[in-house]
Amino acid sequence: MKTFSPVLIVLGVVLCFLSVLHLFPALLAWQAASGNLPAYGLSALLGSGTGLLCMAIGHAHRAPHLQPRQMFLITATAWLVVPLFGALPLLLTQSGMSLADAVFESVSGMTTTGATVLVGLDVMARDVLLWRSILQWFGGMGIIGMAIAVLPFLSVGGMKLFRTESSDWSDKSMPRTQQLLKHLVLVYIVLTLLCALLYRAFGMDTFNAINHALCTISTGGFSTSDSSFAQFTSPILHWICIVFMILGASPFVLFLRALRYRSPAPFADRQLCGMLLMMAVLSSSLALALWQAGDATIGEALTLATFNLVSVVTTTGFASTDYTLWGNFAIVVFFFATFLGGCSGSTSGGIKTFRIQLCLTLIREQVARAIHPRATLPRRYGGVMVSDEILASLVAFLFVMVLCLTVMTLLLALTGLDLVSSLTGSATALANVGPGLGPIIGPAGNFSSLSDMAKWVLCGGMIMGRLEFLTIIVLLSPAFWRR
Amino acid sequence: MKTFSPVLIVLGVVLCFLSVLHLFPALLAWQAASGNLPAYGLSALLGSGTGLLCMAIGHAHRAPHLQPRQMFLITATAWLVVPLFGALPLLLTQSGMSLADAVFESVSGMTTTGATVLVGLDVMARDVLLWRSILQWFGGMGIIGMAIAVLPFLSVGGMKLFRTESSDWSDKSMPRTQQLLKHLVLVYIVLTLLCALLYRAFGMDTFNAINHALCTISTGGFSTSDSSFAQFTSPILHWICIVFMILGASPFVLFLRALRYRSPAPFADRQLCGMLLMMAVLSSSLALALWQAGDATIGEALTLATFNLVSVVTTTGFASTDYTLWGNFAIVVFFFATFLGGCSGSTSGGIKTFRIQLCLTLIREQVARAIHPRATLPRRYGGVMVSDEILASLVAFLFVMVLCLTVMTLLLALTGLDLVSSLTGSATALANVGPGLGPIIGPAGNFSSLSDMAKWVLCGGMIMGRLEFLTIIVLLSPAFWRR
Repeated sequence: MKTFSPVLIVLGVVLCFLSVLHLFPALLAWQAASGNLPAYGLSALLGSGTGLLCMAIGHAHRAPHLQPRQMFLITATAWLVVPLFGALPLLLTQSGMSLADAVFESVSGMTTTGATVLVGLDVMARDVLLWRSILQWFGGMGIIGMAIAVLPFLSVGGMKLFRTESSDWSDKSMPRTQQLLKHLVLVYIVLTLLCALLYRAFGMDTFNAINHALCTISTGGFSTSDSSFAQFTSPILHWICIVFMILGASPFVLFLRALRYRSPAPFADRQLCGMLLMMAVLSSSLALALWQAGDATIGEALTLATFNLVSVVTTTGFASTDYTLWGNFAIVVFFFATFLGGCSGSTSGGIKTFRIQLCLTLIREQVARAIHPRATLPRRYGGVMVSDEILASLVAFLFVMVLCLTVMTLLLALTGLDLVSSLTGSATALANVGPGLGPIIGPAGNFSSLSDMAKWVLCGGMIMGRLEFLTIIVLLSPAFWRR
Repeated sequence: MKTFSPVLIVLGVVLCFLSVLHLFPALLAWQAASGNLPAYGLSALLGSGTGLLCMAIGHAHRAPHLQPRQMFLITATAWLVVPLFGALPLLLTQSGMSLADAVFESVSGMTTTGATVLVGLDVMARDVLLWRSILQWFGGMGIIGMAIAVLPFLSVGGMKLFRTESSDWSDKSMPRTQQLLKHLVLVYIVLTLLCALLYRAFGMDTFNAINHALCTISTGGFSTSDSSFAQFTSPILHWICIVFMILGASPFVLFLRALRYRSPAPFADRQLCGMLLMMAVLSSSLALALWQAGDATIGEALTLATFNLVSVVTTTGFASTDYTLWGNFAIVVFFFATFLGGCSGSTSGGIKTFRIQLCLTLIREQVARAIHPRATLPRRYGGVMVSDEILASLVAFLFVMVLCLTVMTLLLALTGLDLVSSLTGSATALANVGPGLGPIIGPAGNFSSLSDMAKWVLCGGMIMGRLEFLTIIVLLSPAFWRR
């Protein structure tokens, strides 16, 4: 029982916090008399009840200090259980969603993927729309906390590079870690407010500004319209969104440093530069292709290309047009961009910039070693030695990702989906992006027509991606469960 | 000049050998009076002339012993120059091929890819067909020699694992290496003869038996008919082909050991078992899907599924039917199977079994390390320690492969090809398989309708894949050319 007590405590706290957030859509439902008020009430009661129960049991069997096994359990349990409670209101409201749909929408929200099974968003009850946005914002907060304080501790996927005092969970440095996390949450809230204010100032109504701010900074990508961000015609709004998507995909510790907070931020600058460079190259070549096709002025082309590309690379998933109509070159760019992801320590998913940079470092090393076989070459990334162990976990990360992609694509194909839909559906779920490619799940489509089986597979993929793959693999290994 | 002398000597020997092989199609052209005799004569003259010149210049400036830089140069120059001479007869015969077509066909032949730009093979001059088959057989021999004696020496792509006495090019062990290579060539020739005899005995005519034997054992995949192996209806021929494709994709040193030759064959058994297991799982699941669809008896389904899957995994590329009509599950299986490849030390391409097994070892290690962070875990593959250096070169290999895939897919898309054709075209070229997927370059189609630009890109990809990527990257680095 002592093994599970920290798991129960964390789960309890998270569920109680989620229950408090029910207040906002409940207020909206009450004000608009949408008839959904009981749904939020019941859901909040169930959530907080379960949460308090978990905390009570957990505290009764309190364990002295955390061990890796427990960290794995906490992380995985939170991401498997909390989305179920997030799905409750969707299931109970009058939107009439099936279980698979409600869970898909909630998982897609909390993992900040942004793929949706809902159509007719423009005429949907506003409280449901707000709840979806809150799910993304809440999930985004969890992701930053996990990326900074939990994953480096678990040394999966090369994240050990980021192990600093702030990811040390020994009793000694616990207060410091907690303080850092508090400041990060504060930064997250301030950025959200700033984004909402700017959206409001440049033309969105208050409701849209709040919803889109919640889904931008969390790199989520849910919108209040079936046409996603294309509902807004002002280019300024698009550029504000671009800036905040990039902020959402930046290492959050950088913001603390900018605020004269002496925080450890290894490689943060290097990652950010890499990501921005990648975005600049890809979006300018897309803009060039778009402009040459003659359908847009250079300014329009730049806005369209940058918005949609940044949206995919930051794994947000907003779309301002159906970019699959831009021709084969654009489709291929978006296909590969789906995998990239933003920086580590942010709300974005995917492979992430530091892993790509690490791989490039290794290629350079290989070339040097091939020419001078006897040279001793210290392997460094951003001034830090890259140990053998980090290397091994990098290979394992990439390989497990490919393995997951293969298995998921096969499973989706078994449900009858074509190659492009299966492949890009898996990719977009594993990288937590949102839209796929092809006529069904492309940026102009959605996931509503998929079979329940396919939706469950995608739910699994989104959670796998969010937990950086190995966390789940570890949990599935028999060795984990042996004493 | 001393740097280039070994390059010239090797190039000269290879060109002279290639010129001798012109004899066979020339005889056929003379016998059938196809009018192509002058083409082979001229081509052989040019080839042997250049070859002798290279040897003469090389010997005049003989260097004492080989250095890594020279090995890179030899390998890359051979694969870049020799296919050009292989394309000469195609260009000079009355088939009227363009330069891009002739080079594509020759590169596809020598790299044993097997993608073709020719249509109407059934009515084509027999000497041209034989020349294509000879290109594949000749290429296959070069690949085995390179994989066993050269690549481990260059320590690219984790091949250092295979570094043994036979890949030691110091003056002391040179005779032993040369002896091993001679025996390997003998095994290669014996296997080819055996394959041809069996084909002949079970129903092929002599011409077809010889051609298909040359293209089977080299895991090449050129055929004498547009319908590829579907021209033969006897299931026995298909199973003979399956067996010899597997032999062609097996570590050739294993055959020497089977002949009571005490040769080092690290991991050979383990690789072979892994490959066979993978093939068994994939082809039985394909057969099951095919049988359940109700179009074939269980026996027919097993033959069809095994033949086409083994053909793709061994990177041969024969097709006995249009397997893209088997439904989405089959298409996805073939998509991923394109990357797998056979064993290292064989004629096949792709990622290769030992790299996949190495990655699986790393995942197991990661899981163990995650649960017991302080445990010391020796990293072993087949009883041999996997050093940090091998690990780094494995990551670099996989990453460069993905990078090449990305760049090639983008380039192909720029020529106007759709996502599926661009992506599977790149994959099939880089893994030296042959057919791609989709309506244009699928198993029922061919590469003839592609633009010249696309053909050149694919030629580059086939050579990159054959040289295990890093060999080319090294050559492109400025550091290589600095003194």
